[in-house]
Amino acid sequence: MALINENFLKLPESYLFSDIKKKVEAFKHLHPDANIISLGIGDVTRPIAPVVIEALHAAVDEMGDSKTFRGYGPEQGYDFLQKKIIENDYIHRGVDLAPDEIFISDGAKSDIGNIGDILSMQNRVAVTDPVYPVYIDTNVMGGRAGNIAKDGQHWDNIIYIPCTSENNFIPEPPSVRPDIIYLCYPNNPTGTTLSKNELEKWVNYALENETLILFDSAYEAYIHDEGIPHSIYEVKDAKRVAIEFRSFSKTAGFTGLRCGYTVVPKELKLYDTSKKKVNINRLWNRRQTTKFNGTSYIVQRAAEATYSPVGKIQIQESIDYYMRNAGLLKDCLQKAGLQIYGGDNAPYIWVKTPNELSSWKFFDRLLYECHIVGTPGVGFGPSGEGYFRLTAFGRYEDTIESISRIQNWKL
Amino acid sequence: MALINENFLKLPESYLFSDIKKKVEAFKHLHPDANIISLGIGDVTRPIAPVVIEALHAAVDEMGDSKTFRGYGPEQGYDFLQKKIIENDYIHRGVDLAPDEIFISDGAKSDIGNIGDILSMQNRVAVTDPVYPVYIDTNVMGGRAGNIAKDGQHWDNIIYIPCTSENNFIPEPPSVRPDIIYLCYPNNPTGTTLSKNELEKWVNYALENETLILFDSAYEAYIHDEGIPHSIYEVKDAKRVAIEFRSFSKTAGFTGLRCGYTVVPKELKLYDTSKKKVNINRLWNRRQTTKFNGTSYIVQRAAEATYSPVGKIQIQESIDYYMRNAGLLKDCLQKAGLQIYGGDNAPYIWVKTPNELSSWKFFDRLLYECHIVGTPGVGFGPSGEGYFRLTAFGRYEDTIESISRIQNWKL
Repeated sequence: MALINENFLKLPESYLFSDIKKKVEAFKHLHPDANIISLGIGDVTRPIAPVVIEALHAAVDEMGDSKTFRGYGPEQGYDFLQKKIIENDYIHRGVDLAPDEIFISDGAKSDIGNIGDILSMQNRVAVTDPVYPVYIDTNVMGGRAGNIAKDGQHWDNIIYIPCTSENNFIPEPPSVRPDIIYLCYPNNPTGTTLSKNELEKWVNYALENETLILFDSAYEAYIHDEGIPHSIYEVKDAKRVAIEFRSFSKTAGFTGLRCGYTVVPKELKLYDTSKKKVNINRLWNRRQTTKFNGTSYIVQRAAEATYSPVGKIQIQESIDYYMRNAGLLKDCLQKAGLQIYGGDNAPYIWVKTPNELSSWKFFDRLLYECHIVGTPGVGFGPSGEGYFRLTAFGRYEDTIESISRIQNWKL
Repeated sequence: MALINENFLKLPESYLFSDIKKKVEAFKHLHPDANIISLGIGDVTRPIAPVVIEALHAAVDEMGDSKTFRGYGPEQGYDFLQKKIIENDYIHRGVDLAPDEIFISDGAKSDIGNIGDILSMQNRVAVTDPVYPVYIDTNVMGGRAGNIAKDGQHWDNIIYIPCTSENNFIPEPPSVRPDIIYLCYPNNPTGTTLSKNELEKWVNYALENETLILFDSAYEAYIHDEGIPHSIYEVKDAKRVAIEFRSFSKTAGFTGLRCGYTVVPKELKLYDTSKKKVNINRLWNRRQTTKFNGTSYIVQRAAEATYSPVGKIQIQESIDYYMRNAGLLKDCLQKAGLQIYGGDNAPYIWVKTPNELSSWKFFDRLLYECHIVGTPGVGFGPSGEGYFRLTAFGRYEDTIESISRIQNWKL
């Protein structure tokens, strides 16, 4: 009798974005003519940069010619892209990596989910709270989360590290020692960052406690201020404790093209149950060569083009466009008397709901009174209650229109 | 202390194709001027069809224009492609499927590997032998294979169903009942097929024994003879027991573009430990929405173009090209006195090594005496010993040259 992985049955039916969708559909049914603006789901809206489009056309033509056609590529990605990543994302930050420490994939979400394949089910996992739900859900599937508590929000084997305005969104080491901790900076959903000093504390914690850090830096391109690390490897010895996930999705608008990469340093060692050290780079390589056939060649050429001199300029233009939205939204929300966080080095603005409104109550009011869709903070975890996420990925015109509605809003 | 998934440590270091690579490199070192022809790894060589290239260019242009740009797509794939798949691959074979039973992915290898996520570690797995190594290796990683036997070939918790010339490559139900069985037809590596009658026996076996069939039909486009099923769902009630994996890799030369799909019928139910039936379509949907962000939009448009009237013709031309190679190779090998199988409805030719030569000995002789690289049958499992795989994916000119060398070969 073929049996399922029963951990899947533990996952609650409803899911944040589908709940939002249902609410928006109900609203549309009542107000079919309303011009709803979405500042909710974190998808980009700007088209792919011209120089990247050129690279795609050239790569497509290569695939149509028997002299330049490419079949299966390396499962780990082409070295033309691995090398560009090292040169442009790491070397000038003092981080030295080899091409075989960079694994190209179809996106950070795949790698963040699949990394669990190489990790024991016995590991105790910690997350900052609020958090990107994928970190939790993939660990539920992998049997590391335990059971959901009666509150429907906490998993009893996950360690939650609250990040709220009370601690200035700086996670503190938990009382129970985790084997694995997910850190995402610039943070989704709060838009906050960690200074190098704060990140150093976590690397040292991980070194002392033999904790693996899964570092998600999908939003590093939005860092504007000096002194905020773009990569965890800017911190000394981080290679011994951290895997870093990166994506071209938010950096270069690749959400529909699909490309990301994961750095697994050769210095990183974890343990088997006999406490013998195991090289993780080799394990991940084996996982990828067995369960993955590489990222589309033409998409890897597109990613390569983002590192050309013109590519960098064009991509920065889109980031600047989104960050102008962030600045305008932030300014407007502050003038409306709201307490807000993030938005300086991240495309996310984290709003403290006024008058102790719940996240969902604030969602309903913003939808029904301003026709704006955002994301209730509680959807990202229990410590997100009383907060609300807005994204800067909308069109400029929509952001301006949102601002004008919020200005006239009687909160 | 962060622990690894120790099942990874059970996998032997060496891997079939890396061993072959090492042997070829050693040969090249000794014979730097030899013109080595590879009929080994199953990668295509013909460029992408012109109408597909056109579709790619058009989709690339869409991504460069804010009016037509697409960000995140559905994790399950776009319905324009799901519908084309149903219309062209299933309806005319009497198979009725809904778009939400088709999951588009970046390739069959990913799905065949990832399907284990939704299945219990307790399941007993059966494979036909010889077999595509990914079926075994992913189950080793997932903890379902047990330990490798002293012979270095059998995993003690995997049920091997020998398929050799003795049983005409038709798998017979094993004495121990499996929970899951992998079937691949047309078969890699043997190039053999199952008649509808034979496939019906397996569907009935699965229905009676509550066994899940994982059906890999990556090579169905190479079926030429009438009466050989292209899809397992051509067999009555197969939807209740089977998941089908398909790929554009061999059908349309997408090995470098990356697109495949998996059919998970809503009628398919497996069990939890309390013997309650569970809908597998929903489980796979949850897996994909949590750990995957969809296949590249432009690649999905390319896949769609393979179903256009011109696309079908152009793709058939490449299949005919490869099958001409297969026919020529087969004829030549038979004339050389070799016993061969496959090659009629599959791009693979399965050679019985003469004079009881071992697979690797035959490999060495073919390499050193004909400068041709193939794949030793034993690399696909213990029942592959004494066999050898050649593929028809080479260039026509190389196939002709190979034939001329084999004709002059003193075996």
